[in-house]
Amino acid sequence: MTRPSLKSWADAAPRLIAVAAGRDSADMVIRQGIWVNVQSRELLPDHDIAIADGRIAYVGPDAGHCIGDRTQVIEAEGRYMLPGLCDGHMHIESGMLTPAEFARAVIPHGTTTMFTDPHEIANVLGLEGVRLMHDEALLQPVNIYTQMPSCAPSAPGLETTGFEITAEDVAEAMDWPGIIGLGEMMNFPGVVAGDPQMLAEMAATQAAGKTVGGHYASPDLGPAFHAYAAGGPADDHEGTKESDAVARVRQGMRAMLRLGSAWYDVESQITAVTEKGLDPRNFILCTDDCHSGTLVNDGHMNRVVRHAIECGCDPLVALQMATVNTAAHFGLERELGSIAPGRRADVILSPDLRALPIETVIARGQVVAEDGRILVDCPHIDWPEAARASVRLGKPLGAEDFEIAAPEGANHVRARVIGVIENQAPTKALSADLPVSEGLVEATGEICQIALVERHRGTGGVTNAFVQGFGYEGPMAMASTVAHDSHHMIVVGTDRAQMALAANRLAEVGGGVVLYADGEEKALVELPIAGLMSDDLAQSVAAKAEALGEAMRDAGCTLNNAYMQHSLLALVVIPELRISDKGLVDVTRFEVVPVIEEVLT
Amino acid sequence: MTRPSLKSWADAAPRLIAVAAGRDSADMVIRQGIWVNVQSRELLPDHDIAIADGRIAYVGPDAGHCIGDRTQVIEAEGRYMLPGLCDGHMHIESGMLTPAEFARAVIPHGTTTMFTDPHEIANVLGLEGVRLMHDEALLQPVNIYTQMPSCAPSAPGLETTGFEITAEDVAEAMDWPGIIGLGEMMNFPGVVAGDPQMLAEMAATQAAGKTVGGHYASPDLGPAFHAYAAGGPADDHEGTKESDAVARVRQGMRAMLRLGSAWYDVESQITAVTEKGLDPRNFILCTDDCHSGTLVNDGHMNRVVRHAIECGCDPLVALQMATVNTAAHFGLERELGSIAPGRRADVILSPDLRALPIETVIARGQVVAEDGRILVDCPHIDWPEAARASVRLGKPLGAEDFEIAAPEGANHVRARVIGVIENQAPTKALSADLPVSEGLVEATGEICQIALVERHRGTGGVTNAFVQGFGYEGPMAMASTVAHDSHHMIVVGTDRAQMALAANRLAEVGGGVVLYADGEEKALVELPIAGLMSDDLAQSVAAKAEALGEAMRDAGCTLNNAYMQHSLLALVVIPELRISDKGLVDVTRFEVVPVIEEVLT
Repeated sequence: MTRPSLKSWADAAPRLIAVAAGRDSADMVIRQGIWVNVQSRELLPDHDIAIADGRIAYVGPDAGHCIGDRTQVIEAEGRYMLPGLCDGHMHIESGMLTPAEFARAVIPHGTTTMFTDPHEIANVLGLEGVRLMHDEALLQPVNIYTQMPSCAPSAPGLETTGFEITAEDVAEAMDWPGIIGLGEMMNFPGVVAGDPQMLAEMAATQAAGKTVGGHYASPDLGPAFHAYAAGGPADDHEGTKESDAVARVRQGMRAMLRLGSAWYDVESQITAVTEKGLDPRNFILCTDDCHSGTLVNDGHMNRVVRHAIECGCDPLVALQMATVNTAAHFGLERELGSIAPGRRADVILSPDLRALPIETVIARGQVVAEDGRILVDCPHIDWPEAARASVRLGKPLGAEDFEIAAPEGANHVRARVIGVIENQAPTKALSADLPVSEGLVEATGEICQIALVERHRGTGGVTNAFVQGFGYEGPMAMASTVAHDSHHMIVVGTDRAQMALAANRLAEVGGGVVLYADGEEKALVELPIAGLMSDDLAQSVAAKAEALGEAMRDAGCTLNNAYMQHSLLALVVIPELRISDKGLVDVTRFEVVPVIEEVLT
Repeated sequence: MTRPSLKSWADAAPRLIAVAAGRDSADMVIRQGIWVNVQSRELLPDHDIAIADGRIAYVGPDAGHCIGDRTQVIEAEGRYMLPGLCDGHMHIESGMLTPAEFARAVIPHGTTTMFTDPHEIANVLGLEGVRLMHDEALLQPVNIYTQMPSCAPSAPGLETTGFEITAEDVAEAMDWPGIIGLGEMMNFPGVVAGDPQMLAEMAATQAAGKTVGGHYASPDLGPAFHAYAAGGPADDHEGTKESDAVARVRQGMRAMLRLGSAWYDVESQITAVTEKGLDPRNFILCTDDCHSGTLVNDGHMNRVVRHAIECGCDPLVALQMATVNTAAHFGLERELGSIAPGRRADVILSPDLRALPIETVIARGQVVAEDGRILVDCPHIDWPEAARASVRLGKPLGAEDFEIAAPEGANHVRARVIGVIENQAPTKALSADLPVSEGLVEATGEICQIALVERHRGTGGVTNAFVQGFGYEGPMAMASTVAHDSHHMIVVGTDRAQMALAANRLAEVGGGVVLYADGEEKALVELPIAGLMSDDLAQSVAAKAEALGEAMRDAGCTLNNAYMQHSLLALVVIPELRISDKGLVDVTRFEVVPVIEEVLT
């Protein structure tokens, strides 16, 4: 496995100088475009760019002196020449794609740099999983920097992950070539309480001169927020209101404004710049989580920049938020994020700065996409068996594994039920009276069964409980090995036999998402890499995911983002009621609670 | 020698968190000031700052929860609380003061961070001299970062310095704790030509993740300028016109706008921001060179910020140019340059953001100055004998050492004469007919003799020539061991015996500046450290320098900045005619030329 060679600025300098001075010819010259200068915040028509050794050698009004016999000349013909777009914080796994396939999907949209936190695979495969993502990332023709995951498990004591990330792991990873910092420090109560492991992880990151990512998912802007800021996180993408963004920037953090497939946090916060007039330098755009369907149909960072502009942001300022601001945040300002000498030659040609159609994408001096088509290879690593056989059930499951036994002599029980809320990540802790039949508690009406199937160590463990809100009708079951954050397997269904079928099917294909109805497999998205990602094309994964959504609707589910709701039901850091391998978790009190509250005779 | 202990952010974090959360009490709380927020670019009244372990723990509307029995409470009473000021590029030696005494002079003006290039001492004492400056810098109660000198000698082949700086020296120094980058890369023709030593120095700096300082002293903004930018320098303070600043920022460099004792480059360039509307983030204020008199009478960075505001710059933007912009440039944004959690607690209290009177200066959480008075010690190192006995003449000089022999049989000669130009650094290459008396060429009228006395190796070498423009009358001589950049000794006079007296006197006191007239010593500034600096108080040095200026005027010199003109006459990188230990140098052709052009019989 070799990383595509790109000389450092220093190693390339002799040639860059020679090209700029006119003593050597460039590899590529882009002629007569509008230089989108994110350093000076200006549009400069009639400029040329000369590129050598994958880096910018010259930007000026005429690069004629840099052109030789072997120089590839691209005519910009008055189009805008803008820096390749940067995604300031994201999870590749959210696209259900490997780094290679994610890159292939987003390069035609003009994304040439990503800062990605492989938090999901860390929960499944630990440091080795992070290393695999990191290694494949470094093979790509664009820049994918890895943020070392900080919090696996997310909720220590309330769940069992495949592996745990330690402070020693963090310190070790800081020496890897593609590690740019620490991934979002989600354990904000831990930071505020001075948790030694969290502080050790941040200290190792700061000692390496790298950036500590933040995640402060609380509306409380009082002393707890200030204590978090004092702990070291340098950015945060969890703000949802203007006051959140303002508070973060004032405290010397960078506000990351997020437009993901299901996150809409740009419009409500960008007014801090567009109306309140704050210095925009500390605002950064990011996606956090994008589904393959979004990547295929809507775009990636070009979608976010376009949206920011639609929200009233000056196009140049919006572009700064996706280029130079991001680069500066990660200490890469002299490496990328602007079209200036020495930087990586990541350049987009577009005829319109507002609609932002991406016509030509150049990365490291190579044309990598043209009119939406990718023109380069995005190499895969040879994913090892441990990554491809991550679903271990211990034994084939049967309907009996999903039975919820009633207490002796009970005819009815009062049971806790996870209540899904439309368009929200938090759940409600509901109660319901449920009948007992042949000694088993049965779901009725709008209530389904939910099971958390242990899949990392093959313990055969199944945690059973109840859920309401999906709207399923008729006998069915849906299972997913994408089950944030510990990524066991979540099975929801109205029929125990099909719940077993679904679970066994995912074990067979190495993970993914499957829906059974009327005893038949209606939809399947195979995610054979860690049960989280496919190494197939984004278009294929998006089509299967689309078919899955269709099958869910056919089964009666009326929720928006129904699949996401499913996959978040084990996220035992968000209130109120969740499921884990340890049992049903009351996330308002951070404790395991019994499914059956009371026996009703 | 111990460095004042300041915990890293990571080491201080447990306490900073505890203070912000209200579990521990702060060391200091500043109450009810206007928070000058250079991150958001806002003025925020009624804010408190809590400080612990020398760092900011909390900034918010009420730090009451951070106050305990042992907390020092300072009432801001509505004054502005602004970050300590940063000087982005400077030479401590220009103040004729050691780092300790320079710090003592500027701390009451609110300067808490300096980026200093000990270029002068590097020419006299080499890497060891840089190390001494660096070590004393690290002892100070404020932040003095050292830029490793890049160009000693400035003009290889045309002068002999005390020591030379090699690429290996640069690489070695990059590991020293106080080295922040490479000092101004003055050899811009070398960079443009691809000189291997210059490129190796920049490469070593970039490999260490540090900042390459620039110095492109040419009005040519064509391919040579672009080639220089492609070589790696990340800033430049040599611009003098708006178009210079604009060009640098567009190329991804930072424009450093300079207001020194004799540099006035802010007003002409800041219009790039105030009128042309460029993003101000890449503009930085600096002094480059300040005499002790300026420090004593006018101020330091507060003078520069005030001037920028007077030039029409928004006060908040001007302050950003002397705080967060500077910090970001050197990769220190998370360490200093703003009042935000985790940063060094460097805070100024001032009642007026335009006139900028500096009332209270806090550095690393300690009140270091109040109402212009310094309240802390600025420790000296024990300067070694090599630094204190740097003036080596080899032998006492006599009048005969300053004789310029005429060619056999000459009655008159046509001689080259260095022409000093009022208010300009370049000189003119003049010619004059001079009489011969007793075999010696004699200066007449407005022309004086000038001598470059070798003082590093005690060779006894004296280069004699002629100079015009000082206006001296009557028998006199003036000598200085501050003699840019090689810092031999420059002696100018109308009387050879007194020239010898002056030279011998400087050897006796270990260097400095002396003026003799009518056979008597009229003024003396002792600079015993490397012949460049005094370890006396700035007030004392300024008074002696003032007396020297008086003595020069008494001797008939009418030039502005007369002493600076004297000290620059050996600067063999600035046209047209200079003097060095190698002879008279034609700096338009970079070659040594004879003093006597033609014999006139």
